[in-house]
Amino acid sequence: MMNYPLTLKSILERAKMLYSKKELVSRDYSGTFRYDYGRFYERVCRLANVLEDLGVNRGARVATLAWNTHRHLELYFAIPCLGAVLHTLNLRLFQDQLIYIINHAEDTIIFVDRDLLPLLEAVKDKLKTVKGFVIMTDSQELPDTSLSPVYSYEQMLAEASPQYNFPSDLDEWSTAAMCYTTATTGEPKGVAYTHRGIFLHCFSCLSADMMGLSERDTVMAVVPMFHANAWGMPYTAAWIGAKQVFPGARPDPKILCQLIQDEKVTVTAGVPTIWMGILEVFEKQAYDFSSVKSFICGGSAVPLSLMKAFDEKLGIPILHAYGMTETTPLVTLSRTKSYMDQWTVEEQYRVRVKQGLVAPGLEIKIIGENGEDLPHDGKIMGELIVRGPWIAGEYYKNPQKSAECMKGGWLHTNDIATIDDEGYIAICDRTKDLIKSGGEWISSVDLENTIMAHPGVAEAAVIAMPHEKWDERPMACVVPRPEFRESLGEEDILNFLDGKVAKWMMPDRVLFIEEIPKTSVGKFNKKELRQKYL
Amino acid sequence: MMNYPLTLKSILERAKMLYSKKELVSRDYSGTFRYDYGRFYERVCRLANVLEDLGVNRGARVATLAWNTHRHLELYFAIPCLGAVLHTLNLRLFQDQLIYIINHAEDTIIFVDRDLLPLLEAVKDKLKTVKGFVIMTDSQELPDTSLSPVYSYEQMLAEASPQYNFPSDLDEWSTAAMCYTTATTGEPKGVAYTHRGIFLHCFSCLSADMMGLSERDTVMAVVPMFHANAWGMPYTAAWIGAKQVFPGARPDPKILCQLIQDEKVTVTAGVPTIWMGILEVFEKQAYDFSSVKSFICGGSAVPLSLMKAFDEKLGIPILHAYGMTETTPLVTLSRTKSYMDQWTVEEQYRVRVKQGLVAPGLEIKIIGENGEDLPHDGKIMGELIVRGPWIAGEYYKNPQKSAECMKGGWLHTNDIATIDDEGYIAICDRTKDLIKSGGEWISSVDLENTIMAHPGVAEAAVIAMPHEKWDERPMACVVPRPEFRESLGEEDILNFLDGKVAKWMMPDRVLFIEEIPKTSVGKFNKKELRQKYL
Repeated sequence: MMNYPLTLKSILERAKMLYSKKELVSRDYSGTFRYDYGRFYERVCRLANVLEDLGVNRGARVATLAWNTHRHLELYFAIPCLGAVLHTLNLRLFQDQLIYIINHAEDTIIFVDRDLLPLLEAVKDKLKTVKGFVIMTDSQELPDTSLSPVYSYEQMLAEASPQYNFPSDLDEWSTAAMCYTTATTGEPKGVAYTHRGIFLHCFSCLSADMMGLSERDTVMAVVPMFHANAWGMPYTAAWIGAKQVFPGARPDPKILCQLIQDEKVTVTAGVPTIWMGILEVFEKQAYDFSSVKSFICGGSAVPLSLMKAFDEKLGIPILHAYGMTETTPLVTLSRTKSYMDQWTVEEQYRVRVKQGLVAPGLEIKIIGENGEDLPHDGKIMGELIVRGPWIAGEYYKNPQKSAECMKGGWLHTNDIATIDDEGYIAICDRTKDLIKSGGEWISSVDLENTIMAHPGVAEAAVIAMPHEKWDERPMACVVPRPEFRESLGEEDILNFLDGKVAKWMMPDRVLFIEEIPKTSVGKFNKKELRQKYL
Repeated sequence: MMNYPLTLKSILERAKMLYSKKELVSRDYSGTFRYDYGRFYERVCRLANVLEDLGVNRGARVATLAWNTHRHLELYFAIPCLGAVLHTLNLRLFQDQLIYIINHAEDTIIFVDRDLLPLLEAVKDKLKTVKGFVIMTDSQELPDTSLSPVYSYEQMLAEASPQYNFPSDLDEWSTAAMCYTTATTGEPKGVAYTHRGIFLHCFSCLSADMMGLSERDTVMAVVPMFHANAWGMPYTAAWIGAKQVFPGARPDPKILCQLIQDEKVTVTAGVPTIWMGILEVFEKQAYDFSSVKSFICGGSAVPLSLMKAFDEKLGIPILHAYGMTETTPLVTLSRTKSYMDQWTVEEQYRVRVKQGLVAPGLEIKIIGENGEDLPHDGKIMGELIVRGPWIAGEYYKNPQKSAECMKGGWLHTNDIATIDDEGYIAICDRTKDLIKSGGEWISSVDLENTIMAHPGVAEAAVIAMPHEKWDERPMACVVPRPEFRESLGEEDILNFLDGKVAKWMMPDRVLFIEEIPKTSVGKFNKKELRQKYL
């Protein structure tokens, strides 16, 4: 077979050759922007010329601090197809993290959305390698800013040549993109995605039992494009010419509902809190969601109650997915198997609420504390380890963390999981959040999801509190729904749990709080909870 | 990203881990054999031990002369996953070709179906490298044969250990399988498929707009497993746990119809003549084909009349596909794009009857006689050239043919095609079958398909006859349907063509014949036609 490299150029060129008439819709600052893959390709070529003019060489890191927009998609392709590295910056990072990441990656240029300028202005004096800032907005005029030097995205594109020959000698092992993962402890760790890795990840997304995207789909990634390639959706959708919808700056649930309805979105993806917000809006005002085939949900565990609410109120399935920055990110997706159609609805929910089956192309295992393989019985918990062609083999310039997490050719996820005899994985906890009580393990995630099924509970996080006899015992931090704020008590939660979880798993304490602190990617920040309440 | 090889082991292990309960159905000599991927995996392990006992080393070629059966699927996995090379022999080859191929590939062991023994017995004395024959039938007993030494497949499997650790150090560039393509001229040419190539081809097959196979499908490859990996279906279906149906020895259209109905086949694939046969049977006896989503049809051009007949009489679409032995084989598949739903039915047919859109991962072009790129206007014809990760970069131990066909990093297909502005390719002819009349090109395939739309025509092949003034002119060789044998005349054909093709494309002669000779893969043998009738 030919030694033909697996690169993003192949994806870009196919979108142009076959789907030049297919639409891209982007919620821009002054309204809705619409164009097609034909004009998109032309702008990607202009952008490539701009990047060259800015001195971007092969291997150079070019950062983006941006929402999900059509301009971000242009950068998704132009930077890697040129041979440079797209480095997406998480706009919810703390200042110190942002500074660390930009300097660690040695970003040369930063493309920034107009309304995010203050984030960079606040840190600009500490950036060591950045030579310029390109401001993205819907006019050619530059807003006032203390950044320097600054360039106008639209002006430069307007002045650039619409012709560009993307190099065909890029190695598939060259880095296409980077993303830093922000653990709640320690410095952020960088993951470098190769062209090969993203290409293969897209193939996996395309397969019918994973995302199963097709030309007939209209795809809206709600998951941010600054996080783990937006789960591969922008690249994958372009490859097969699906219409794409970009929700733009600061999308709230109402905006998302409106876009789903107006643009007839068929597949969308995001974290559970997004769907909770959409459900809330939908319950007040019924939108027409008849185009939607599935809501893909990952990032943290989907509460069963949320899944049921979507089935019952919207008639649309939530598909549970699992992955992480280090895995490009799709590792599993949960669809029931055909013979499970004969099962009861409750039995099917027990499968659907799990994170699902490993994607074609990857391998997973669970291992015990001494590294031994554990059986797939759906009960025994172990650390989930993953390997495959789109799994990080190391952290970028971080040999210490690489040695900790990528041992023996496997990525150690720090997630505690079970695998059942059908092959479905269920994430029980992060290793550090697991509650170790009297030699037994208690999954904080299971407890949280059970508590969140209580109608009076908005959110719940469970952490380990130290215990003399049992080492650790669970403590539940519960945010009541507004209308239950006065009435909900500890006994209500414990009575609700009675019969649903084993006696020895019952929380020793239930604490009612205003809000659960979140990390920059929207997950429960248990480190902060522990600091605050223990 | 990890340096994780793309090998067939990954496919095999996933089938076992996730789909051990899913069914495989095989039409065996004494009835229907049923098992599941769990027991299949066990037998593949036994088979791997058998292969080791037979002295099969890494890189050794192991041949199969077999129908589409579950045993053939076991060989599809055991041989490559062990590190050896699966060489599928075309059971319709002429003796000299069979001898040439086995000797050229240096096959060490041949696995042969019971009823195909005579084919090997006839050539056994000329086989230089074969050390043994394994006979496949549904009993452990060996039939009488002059082959030696012979082994019983079922007996050896019964006696072998059910445990086997497939090596995980195979390189993705190592050869997994081989298939020879038999041109109508010259010696057969061998194509070596790498693990990487087949793996990526499977990914492409999985994507929703190509075959789009899912766990919920029941897949029956009618296309022989001895030909170009049966279009990737056996591997792809195993990867995602689809139920597979194997039609066994000498399947006739009635058997196929019965299997489709009884096993609730959802996707099946084969050459046009198969579907013509099925249509004929179906018209006499209505089977329940309600499970079928699509018939995939390739190998030669699908006549529009066949496609329409399937739509009208069965209500099931034929999907047109294109590929060749050198391309693993899927290159294109024809589905209309979503916005074409607004087109008229006839406009949609004009798209569907084309070979379709290039698969994700591949690149195609059409070039002129001097190698120049030709425009995509749907009219200008040029040679189709292809490149990508599952396209042959050379012929096995055949530098001369490699130099002819794999020039400049592209596979030159010898097919003349157009590409339209939507990206759909239409194969017009083989370069050698194209009729060059007065400096203009006439597609023999177009003429054939137009003639075959005549209700009195069973089959038609068009060849070039020499002409003093115009160099070449078309001559049509027509096989009438039995009930039209007496009545159909040259005028009927010419009148039928009038208005459907340009005047200068009209055949100069229409010859009525009994039967069109076919090649070993069921295509019109125009070389023989020319020898016989010119």
